Amino acid sequence: MPKLILVRHGQSEWNLANRFTGWWDVDLTDKGVEEARAAGALMKDKGIRPTHCFTSYQTRAIKTLNLALEEMDMLWLPVTKDWRLNERHYGGLTGLNKQETRDKHGDEQVHIWRRSYDTPPPEMEAGHQYDPGADPRYHGIDVPTSESLKLTIERVLPYYESDILPRLKAGEDVLISAHGNSLRALVKHLSNISDEDITGLEIPTGQPIVYDFDDNIVPGERYYLKDG
Amino acid sequence: MPKLILVRHGQSEWNLANRFTGWWDVDLTDKGVEEARAAGALMKDKGIRPTHCFTSYQTRAIKTLNLALEEMDMLWLPVTKDWRLNERHYGGLTGLNKQETRDKHGDEQVHIWRRSYDTPPPEMEAGHQYDPGADPRYHGIDVPTSESLKLTIERVLPYYESDILPRLKAGEDVLISAHGNSLRALVKHLSNISDEDITGLEIPTGQPIVYDFDDNIVPGERYYLKDG
Repeated sequence: MPKLILVRHGQSEWNLANRFTGWWDVDLTDKGVEEARAAGALMKDKGIRPTHCFTSYQTRAIKTLNLALEEMDMLWLPVTKDWRLNERHYGGLTGLNKQETRDKHGDEQVHIWRRSYDTPPPEMEAGHQYDPGADPRYHGIDVPTSESLKLTIERVLPYYESDILPRLKAGEDVLISAHGNSLRALVKHLSNISDEDITGLEIPTGQPIVYDFDDNIVPGERYYLKDG
Repeated sequence: MPKLILVRHGQSEWNLANRFTGWWDVDLTDKGVEEARAAGALMKDKGIRPTHCFTSYQTRAIKTLNLALEEMDMLWLPVTKDWRLNERHYGGLTGLNKQETRDKHGDEQVHIWRRSYDTPPPEMEAGHQYDPGADPRYHGIDVPTSESLKLTIERVLPYYESDILPRLKAGEDVLISAHGNSLRALVKHLSNISDEDITGLEIPTGQPIVYDFDDNIVPGERYYLKDG
């Protein structure tokens, strides 16, 4: 039976600094590197043997995948990278420290931006110092200026259906290394979680989440791959 | 004008131990990791901006590519991995220390195996402790039991022509991270080197070799990317 394994990247420099990151391309911290390696060691130990991997265009997810695959002795696996698995774009909040943002805009407003299903943060203005739009990796892509979780889902799910699901249908085991919100999009869909509940669901870093699919490609309950 | 950049993987554990490696999947040494990073830093410094990467199924070449891309801030680049870029298969010599092999078989015979264009080493026997054939990465692939340089070229070149050359023709810049003999195959073809001369041509580890192509996709003289 096909298996889908989801891994959120290990701790990033801006996770640590508590800044809104979104599409800005920050690196993993040393702790994040360790989390990625541990995820790989756990997958190896539990006999997880994907046949295809997907990740985003963002260094923290790609490095997490590469480090995990190295631990699994599976660096040779095919990897498809796509911007549609990127983190939610935090618009004008990108780069701001979360406490400073709360101090400036109030707890309530920040809570809405972070936890509302369909309210995007303020748009990123042209010339923003953390605008990823000029990076050649996004050449030809209509880079968003801000995304709600709903908007994030509206690009993640079509990609899942066009590029990932066909591999599961073909009997492949698929590993995805991505981000808190792009993985929320998948978990919402696969576990049928409501708009209200999904924004409160935390995807922990470096903890592989597994879906076993049945013969009709219906996913079972999700579970964490755990030690022991 | 399209550009082709060739990088031989950094020092591997069996380069260091002076053992015939071939298709056995050994890791980079710390020095090899540094060579890979330095190659990436040099490419970044010299403005090398590939649009597509190719590598083999072997960890030492894949890690070299990943480390170089990390230094270039280009981990997001698409990477195609293919066994046809693997190192030459050293058959029954795989795993043997080169000095021991010379002591056993004589300098002359070892020189022939290493430097003859078309004499393959003895075949790898079934059950050999360094047989890669059982590894799932080679599922469905007719793994050779021994290769001369000529046999290596006979799988590298068709792959170059079917998968790599079309990208150059489309105006892409291509980076290949591979092995001493799979890169010899390409250099022989692109620089029109004779059967006699190619076996003596050393491809140094971690030193990017560049071909600039003209509008007719004819390669110019190859040159090393150098500091300064």
